[in-house]
Amino acid sequence: MSPITPLRDERTLVLQLRDAIGALIGAHGLKPGDQLPTEAELTRRFQISRPALREALKLLEQDGAIYVKHGKGRFVSAAAALQVERPITCFESVSEMMQKSGYRPINKVLSISEEAASEEVQAALRLDASSRVIRLERLRMHEEDVLVYGLDYIPRTAVPDRLYDIDWSGSLLDLLERHGMRPCMSTAVATSIMLPPDVSERNDLNDFGPAFLIVETAFTSTGLPIVYAKDYHRGSRFSFSFVRK
Amino acid sequence: MSPITPLRDERTLVLQLRDAIGALIGAHGLKPGDQLPTEAELTRRFQISRPALREALKLLEQDGAIYVKHGKGRFVSAAAALQVERPITCFESVSEMMQKSGYRPINKVLSISEEAASEEVQAALRLDASSRVIRLERLRMHEEDVLVYGLDYIPRTAVPDRLYDIDWSGSLLDLLERHGMRPCMSTAVATSIMLPPDVSERNDLNDFGPAFLIVETAFTSTGLPIVYAKDYHRGSRFSFSFVRK
Repeated sequence: MSPITPLRDERTLVLQLRDAIGALIGAHGLKPGDQLPTEAELTRRFQISRPALREALKLLEQDGAIYVKHGKGRFVSAAAALQVERPITCFESVSEMMQKSGYRPINKVLSISEEAASEEVQAALRLDASSRVIRLERLRMHEEDVLVYGLDYIPRTAVPDRLYDIDWSGSLLDLLERHGMRPCMSTAVATSIMLPPDVSERNDLNDFGPAFLIVETAFTSTGLPIVYAKDYHRGSRFSFSFVRK
Repeated sequence: MSPITPLRDERTLVLQLRDAIGALIGAHGLKPGDQLPTEAELTRRFQISRPALREALKLLEQDGAIYVKHGKGRFVSAAAALQVERPITCFESVSEMMQKSGYRPINKVLSISEEAASEEVQAALRLDASSRVIRLERLRMHEEDVLVYGLDYIPRTAVPDRLYDIDWSGSLLDLLERHGMRPCMSTAVATSIMLPPDVSERNDLNDFGPAFLIVETAFTSTGLPIVYAKDYHRGSRFSFSFVRK
């Protein structure tokens, strides 16, 4: 097995390693109750440091995929059967999600504006009534197809530049990162709904069909709400996996 | 604060306690980095044993809601802001989900039959081509309203009684429990879709609107797949919450 190439940071490495060990359990046909290879074997196999390995194993233990018998080693739990690819519970941007679904996302900015925060947006972003927000309206396309219609609200103070000096067609998360505000977690609510009629009409999307709507508040690592987003995913093109236990 | 009444078992008690401590964090306005009350204070407040308390605190730590500084105590983490009620990641039956959404669910059995497992059902339930399954087709109603259309597939061998000797209008999970096969976890995929046309026509459901479809394989505690279910939830009546991190 080839060594793991660290992507961006130590955290990413540990997450990759967790997934690789999860895949190893599947590839070797390990069943609930079977013992995992030893730490020495796993560090050799993945050419990885012992501390990184232990962190990855701790994540698998927290996910309930493995359990520890003290003095005996690590074992595959029944919940290991519950691995799903790309779970909806992993925080990622719409662009990342689209890429992992096999699309090459292009953003088309429909509108960018500054406005007073509505009560809904105030509540989500913990703003007061006098607060201003940036409202970003985008289509996420794959070639000519519109796959997602999305609305984002960001506190005006988080991105203090002039609106028209910013290229809004790029990644919103990367933009927020440049301002030291990259979100890394969220709370979300999903439902099924048709696109709002004015949105379908204005954008020639009468064939969009049932949308998988995710309404999401994204937080920075310090727990500050930084983006309130409503993303309407074309139901015929996306599905979302998760584990329930 | 009143003591917690144990519901069904020790596990339930610990889960209740976890939720109660989570609510306490919210009620006291504790912020990321704030210290939790001491173990002594929490056991007194909830009139609960120290071991149960420690288990509940361990769950909160695993959820990332609190973190431990050794020798200093437990602290609220930034992810504590991410508590959602009734997350989609908690395994529950459609009836339980409906009750928690404020409905009084009634089941209407549309059909019950035995058939050869299709390739799709074989794959989900890990059955071979010669396997037979029970197919249960139900409407989940609140008063006169159809809120969910559901299809369930169960290995024939799991419920060996004669089909017509069983009351299929009750809880499927309770029925499986009587056969020592109660599921307690699942993998699921959700999307947005319209009801299949033949289903809407046969059941006068042309006004059902966009459905939130959950396709789910439920497992027993030993990791045995026992139910393959497709539940179409009326999108205008349900939403599903989750945390992403």
